[in-house]
Amino acid sequence: MNFSMIRYILGWVLKLEGLFLLLPCLTALIYKEQQGFVYLAVAAFCVFIGQLMSFCKPKSNVFYLKEGCVATSLSWILMSIFGCLPFVFTGEIPSFTDALFETISGFTTTGASILSDVEAVSHCSTLWRCFTHWIGGMGVLVFLLAIIPMSGGSHINLMKAESPGPSVGKIVPKIKQTARILYLIYILLSILQLVLLLLGGMPFFEALNTTFATAGTGGFGIKNDSFTSYSPYLQWVTAIFMLLFSFNFNVFYLLLLRNFKKAFSNEEVRWFLLIVLVAVSIITANIYEVSGNLFKALTDATFQVASLISSTGFASANFDLWPEICKTTLIIIMFIGACAGSTGGGLKVSRFIIMVKSVIRECYSYIHPKSIRKLQLDGKDVEDETVRAVGVYVLTFLLIYGLSLFCLSFDKHSFTTNFTAVLATFNNIGPGLDAVGPTCNFGFFSDFSKYVLMFDMLAGRLELFPLLILFHHGTWNGIFRKRK
Amino acid sequence: MNFSMIRYILGWVLKLEGLFLLLPCLTALIYKEQQGFVYLAVAAFCVFIGQLMSFCKPKSNVFYLKEGCVATSLSWILMSIFGCLPFVFTGEIPSFTDALFETISGFTTTGASILSDVEAVSHCSTLWRCFTHWIGGMGVLVFLLAIIPMSGGSHINLMKAESPGPSVGKIVPKIKQTARILYLIYILLSILQLVLLLLGGMPFFEALNTTFATAGTGGFGIKNDSFTSYSPYLQWVTAIFMLLFSFNFNVFYLLLLRNFKKAFSNEEVRWFLLIVLVAVSIITANIYEVSGNLFKALTDATFQVASLISSTGFASANFDLWPEICKTTLIIIMFIGACAGSTGGGLKVSRFIIMVKSVIRECYSYIHPKSIRKLQLDGKDVEDETVRAVGVYVLTFLLIYGLSLFCLSFDKHSFTTNFTAVLATFNNIGPGLDAVGPTCNFGFFSDFSKYVLMFDMLAGRLELFPLLILFHHGTWNGIFRKRK
Repeated sequence: MNFSMIRYILGWVLKLEGLFLLLPCLTALIYKEQQGFVYLAVAAFCVFIGQLMSFCKPKSNVFYLKEGCVATSLSWILMSIFGCLPFVFTGEIPSFTDALFETISGFTTTGASILSDVEAVSHCSTLWRCFTHWIGGMGVLVFLLAIIPMSGGSHINLMKAESPGPSVGKIVPKIKQTARILYLIYILLSILQLVLLLLGGMPFFEALNTTFATAGTGGFGIKNDSFTSYSPYLQWVTAIFMLLFSFNFNVFYLLLLRNFKKAFSNEEVRWFLLIVLVAVSIITANIYEVSGNLFKALTDATFQVASLISSTGFASANFDLWPEICKTTLIIIMFIGACAGSTGGGLKVSRFIIMVKSVIRECYSYIHPKSIRKLQLDGKDVEDETVRAVGVYVLTFLLIYGLSLFCLSFDKHSFTTNFTAVLATFNNIGPGLDAVGPTCNFGFFSDFSKYVLMFDMLAGRLELFPLLILFHHGTWNGIFRKRK
Repeated sequence: MNFSMIRYILGWVLKLEGLFLLLPCLTALIYKEQQGFVYLAVAAFCVFIGQLMSFCKPKSNVFYLKEGCVATSLSWILMSIFGCLPFVFTGEIPSFTDALFETISGFTTTGASILSDVEAVSHCSTLWRCFTHWIGGMGVLVFLLAIIPMSGGSHINLMKAESPGPSVGKIVPKIKQTARILYLIYILLSILQLVLLLLGGMPFFEALNTTFATAGTGGFGIKNDSFTSYSPYLQWVTAIFMLLFSFNFNVFYLLLLRNFKKAFSNEEVRWFLLIVLVAVSIITANIYEVSGNLFKALTDATFQVASLISSTGFASANFDLWPEICKTTLIIIMFIGACAGSTGGGLKVSRFIIMVKSVIRECYSYIHPKSIRKLQLDGKDVEDETVRAVGVYVLTFLLIYGLSLFCLSFDKHSFTTNFTAVLATFNNIGPGLDAVGPTCNFGFFSDFSKYVLMFDMLAGRLELFPLLILFHHGTWNGIFRKRK
């Protein structure tokens, strides 16, 4: 294991975080909030530690997948620990556990909060909460790849470890170029949403935070009632952007290249839209009676489906009160999640497609045992290795799910609460049902449960294995041996 | 597809069912119940139809896995339809849907009942309910293989389709011999349990029915309070036999051969016992306060863990009232289930082991990407094909689970009710939590939900694919074409 290279990368990540922390400082300056000094101090501290760590260049460029995974996991953990310090020192979230929970929830774009009154938080802290979503959405290492020169196999292996989906999608042959294109699309879409929200009359500060939280598919609210009191126009704009940020970003690149035919034939996005359509229809039909108004029912259903399938987690209605069929539909789409190569969480639509297709192929193989049929996605054969990896991914997901559920049940909450709390954190969504429903928060869990949920959030965002291998003894072989 | 061979097998299955129906006739004779005439009539009808169907020998011996699957699924469906007729015609379960539900629940050894008062049922119907468990436990086609001569590839393919577990376990090279040994062990264990129950003072009729329900890991109660009012001795005997019937039967064969070393080193059984031990410890510790008595807590915990992990479903306590941690533990062991090659249901311990080991191997492969390590079970390499099949099995399980949950949620019951109702039927257990808890029954579901749950019971017992391929158009190609 090339620990010096990992140290070097972690140093850079901290320096970047110091840079990011200047945005809340600026906010504090504008709103004349004294919390800004805390942010400035933490920013300086990050840069100082980061500079110390990245001062010596690594001696070796050897960088395999394991180094990529360890560097990524540790980056996220370190970023969260440093990122929660302002909350602690400003006293806005005095408990370290709670502050860490909030920050991990931010960076992993979960959006589950321990705060019962988000409107009481200072402007700079509100901005930092939402900005963590934006950073975490596309990934800090992808950002790093886009701006600093790195060597060895580090590019592809960092990208593999941080990007969501069953196979890493290189848009162009060069990873650095891919990272830049991804961030370019990300920024363009964010600006577009910001402008549309401003046109709808939303104040600039709210629009900026909402854009950050939507783009990263995070879902931290800046109002206690989340999205309930906003106008239908603002709800529709946000719903549409939640869906757009759940698309595979390759589609946007194809659109930029004016390759419309290929963009519109993307199988994953088609399935995704089909699932959204079916879910919205079911829910609209079932809440129509309660709403009494078709437009209101359709708006609520679309907003909530977009919010949960994209793993954002904004709420425009208390869906915990909806009929059981609506809640079950929402739970199912929460499992499926967004497209691979998006900022959204969940199992990912492409994995879901591979699941469905491998079940059909298995039935076929009972009827024609000697046939060898490859799975197809987007008209291309899917590698057997990818199908196998999807299987193992789901198995791992289930085992961690079961274990988390078990750990949570030491607290005496209902099965629905525990089941959806794990689902909402593991798939980086935010709200669940019952005691973690859209009008509630995660503050009531014990510290132990909170750490379990933090693990789930990180495991979900990093897609399990990069985090899991931190617990494999093989990873740490040689850390205390003298380096050659 | 060799439809004539399938017809021939179905005919034999019906004739066997006619034979089995003589047991309730005999019971009616003893207890002088006039319902006996109905059973006699249905038995005669089964034999008549069966004889018609198996009169012409099949022209072709070609018999592949698909024929095995179709023959098995259709046998189970046909058996259930004919088997429910006595309930309908005696008027004890007047609704055909309910009677079919009860019979499928019997044959698949689920034990979920729609009856609210099982003590009101006649002796002959009580016996028939429990006897269906005993027949379904080891499998009617295995019985068929043991007694009638069959040709072609039918032996191995019927065995593959009906036997539970990730790979078919031939005890001896000849399938016919294997089937006989399995039934011999099954009968011996049943007799042993019957004797031990009688020694504990249980009346013969109750002991016989309890044995049938335990041996098949079914769980139909003959008392409204299931096992609550029986003595601790009877509870312990039943708990131990529920565990024994969850063992891989190969172990008993090895014991018969006095190959103790190999028997005791069976990895699956060791994991199984470990899981039981952990679950019992957790539950005992958490219900100790409520029980106030260590022995009572230990008895209840052991009985309930044995009952649910073996997928039997007897209840000695209302575990729906236990602390959340106990309920979650029970739900987790309900998912895991019994050993492969037993009469129990669930995912099976060997699949669970393969899941855990493939997750560990996956972590290892991130650290050492070039290493090729095979999974090991019982010191032997597991075929990659088996690992792949386990993955696909779990994926299929999840998809059907989600779909069933969705269908059930049209009825307006709680998430916990729906979630555990699907779990309890799909894994052939019986009781769930909340509205389908141990003191409740399944009668309140809509007919649509009942058919969904019936499908789940059959799919769970036949391990998905044999039933699923009935819905694949490829299976029915050529059924209306002129046979050559």
